[in-house]
Amino acid sequence: MPTPQSPVRLLIEAQWIAPVRATDASAHECLVDHAVAVDDERIVEVLPVAQARQRHPQAERIALPGHLLVPGFVNLHAHAAMSLLRGVGDDLPLAAWLRERMWPLESRLVDPQFVRDGATLAFAEMLLGGTTCVNDMYFFPEASIEAALAVGIRSAHGIVVVDFPTVYASTPAEYLRKGLALRDRMRDESLVSFCLAPHAPYTVGDDTLREVATISREIGLPIHIHVHETTEEIAESLAQHGRRPLARLDALGLVGPEMIAVHAVHLDDDDVHRLAGSGASVAHCPHSNLKLACGIAPTARLHEMGIRVGIGTDGSASNNRLDLLGEARTAALLAKVTSGRADAWPAGRTLRAMTLDAATALGLDARIGSIEPGKQADLVAFDLRATELSPVYDPVSQLIYACGREHVSDVWVAARPVVRKRQLADPGVRDAVCEVVGRTGVWQNRVGEILSGRA
Amino acid sequence: MPTPQSPVRLLIEAQWIAPVRATDASAHECLVDHAVAVDDERIVEVLPVAQARQRHPQAERIALPGHLLVPGFVNLHAHAAMSLLRGVGDDLPLAAWLRERMWPLESRLVDPQFVRDGATLAFAEMLLGGTTCVNDMYFFPEASIEAALAVGIRSAHGIVVVDFPTVYASTPAEYLRKGLALRDRMRDESLVSFCLAPHAPYTVGDDTLREVATISREIGLPIHIHVHETTEEIAESLAQHGRRPLARLDALGLVGPEMIAVHAVHLDDDDVHRLAGSGASVAHCPHSNLKLACGIAPTARLHEMGIRVGIGTDGSASNNRLDLLGEARTAALLAKVTSGRADAWPAGRTLRAMTLDAATALGLDARIGSIEPGKQADLVAFDLRATELSPVYDPVSQLIYACGREHVSDVWVAARPVVRKRQLADPGVRDAVCEVVGRTGVWQNRVGEILSGRA
Repeated sequence: MPTPQSPVRLLIEAQWIAPVRATDASAHECLVDHAVAVDDERIVEVLPVAQARQRHPQAERIALPGHLLVPGFVNLHAHAAMSLLRGVGDDLPLAAWLRERMWPLESRLVDPQFVRDGATLAFAEMLLGGTTCVNDMYFFPEASIEAALAVGIRSAHGIVVVDFPTVYASTPAEYLRKGLALRDRMRDESLVSFCLAPHAPYTVGDDTLREVATISREIGLPIHIHVHETTEEIAESLAQHGRRPLARLDALGLVGPEMIAVHAVHLDDDDVHRLAGSGASVAHCPHSNLKLACGIAPTARLHEMGIRVGIGTDGSASNNRLDLLGEARTAALLAKVTSGRADAWPAGRTLRAMTLDAATALGLDARIGSIEPGKQADLVAFDLRATELSPVYDPVSQLIYACGREHVSDVWVAARPVVRKRQLADPGVRDAVCEVVGRTGVWQNRVGEILSGRA
Repeated sequence: MPTPQSPVRLLIEAQWIAPVRATDASAHECLVDHAVAVDDERIVEVLPVAQARQRHPQAERIALPGHLLVPGFVNLHAHAAMSLLRGVGDDLPLAAWLRERMWPLESRLVDPQFVRDGATLAFAEMLLGGTTCVNDMYFFPEASIEAALAVGIRSAHGIVVVDFPTVYASTPAEYLRKGLALRDRMRDESLVSFCLAPHAPYTVGDDTLREVATISREIGLPIHIHVHETTEEIAESLAQHGRRPLARLDALGLVGPEMIAVHAVHLDDDDVHRLAGSGASVAHCPHSNLKLACGIAPTARLHEMGIRVGIGTDGSASNNRLDLLGEARTAALLAKVTSGRADAWPAGRTLRAMTLDAATALGLDARIGSIEPGKQADLVAFDLRATELSPVYDPVSQLIYACGREHVSDVWVAARPVVRKRQLADPGVRDAVCEVVGRTGVWQNRVGEILSGRA
């Protein structure tokens, strides 16, 4: 047993703990009647309850009978601010969704206030559903960070860059400069990290992509980019560049362990081998891909080929629930049906995709993603004592296939309780979120005015 | 306005009401600030709140600000008792799931007590999630009916028949005799109805199927049958009978408006035209089909061809959540991706599939499935005032794409409140369900003993 490095402040005693240790390939390990001993922010040790009480008699104790404790979920792809546009373009074909809804609305609405309000709602929703870390990509990341810190969620933020001007910046150089300066200002925020976020191969040119690759190598940042979401994008790349987007990105130096390839729906053999050989990660967003009729990523094959896959919700405009557990269940089910193998993406591997594997993709696996000594205490407790969850034959399987985000009882981020008894723990945070909810009517009116041509 | 036929006892006043009227082809109609006036069991009228209060000053009033009121959901295919086996065979290939788990367990465990306990859990779960009517198929339907009446859910029950003996009956004639006698005994139970339920083409022979068709014609009962769930089943039928299962059933007189074809995953052109020409209904069970890696039913095409599609959860052993709303969302998303059209299965049509269309399949559309005068007051209220549901651009769309069963606040069956403030309304029912939950440990132990060979 490692010696505690700082005083154990709290024992979280759970009937079941799924630690998702890196050494457990199935990620299906489940400890019974164990406690997680934590100090001010980290996990000190994981041990049987009786032993924990004996060893740390002075620690506060939280007893979770009938609960399953798992590592906090890591949402590997989000556009948090878009929660204010949830449901605005439902049931529209992709082209109309983009051209008649998203683009006109975003060009008129997006500013720091929009991002702060939208991200506040999104992060509150995520925390209440067990997501403790989110990889966000949006304009005005400083506003998104402000929301994340206020709500108490761990977050990675995209240093966004596109080759055309927006209200946020005018040139690729300006996008990158703003993002890197923000990163510099946030260097002391332990809950905040960054990715380079060139939006997509079709919105960013070769020069900018090359620069992104260089910066990534120099300062070791992940590269968060949409790729191969639609067949149109691939056809366009073949026409314009003579190669598929992934091949082009590879030639430009972006396909490596730092890459988080978002969507990766349409992959041919060459694409799959390219990803497998590179150490890149995929951020799988099943509900968004289904809802926009993009397709289904070949995730069973990705697992077989040893490619790391995390799970993302995408933004609320293309997936109206920021519910990583629901997303993971759909991911497991789709992997089975598309491979024709009911044993593809078993529960443990699915849990690992939404925790440790996503943390690794973000370069954060030394700090989060599993319940192991030395890691940050990012934890989620599920109350399995419900009619719809009885009986419990296998807690990990029950989590993936039967639980919903409504069964999340408690959430900790860096040992700080952020959700307690199914609500935001801090009354100040609760009030702030309520205030934003109250203000959504104002945003809704502005959306209505823009869409009706009145504004 | 129709004159009230009996005294209005209650006004349910909701911010939004989606009535799902048969005349509204989109099923997307949404009334604002209306009330549903109900008598002891039926809907008397639906009218603006102010007018309702004036016209029925003596009625009790339930105000639901920020809520959406919809017709109770109709679960078109379930094996309720199997909730006791939830999670027992997760992540197993279909053959192992059947041969190493379901068959040995069912042959040892199933008796009236198992069915009563399992169905009690299942029906409580369904009611809490907004399902007010369920089409169940299992052995010992008398025990399932007992559970349904105790919990307060409306239910249709299969007069089950297979060509081999089970603990429930020995011969096809005995299965049918028992089921028809039960139907006779239940004739005065207004919440109970029946279907003929020959299990599947591969478990029931020609003679029995012909008899089922005859009985259905004579007494006007729907025929609830699994068909075309797997490619193996179709290949076997071609080998044994020289035709596909649906063609065989058609030749035997079973394919008509009475038929509820469960699963219908693998359909060729001939199958689709056969269903379209016959007036048969499909019970689509997306999560079960995904989880067992059976395939994805071509539901966008079924809609295009005018085939009625309802939605079912199937049993808890193949879909660990008896959550019809979640099932419907997945149905809408899968219809989009398989058709390549993001406008397939829009929200309103999806709501209709899980209410009026399923009621029609069961022959109950004169009584339930929509919020219209004269129908039974089977109603569900969703509380849309949540962080994760803000803002509300379109309540019907919000229901299908953003809401979860956790947002169900109130449920009525035949005007009787069965769920109030997110819990079972009747304290006696609540206690009874708790008692069954407590007893699941006993079933769990028996399952463990059987699987380990100790019993």
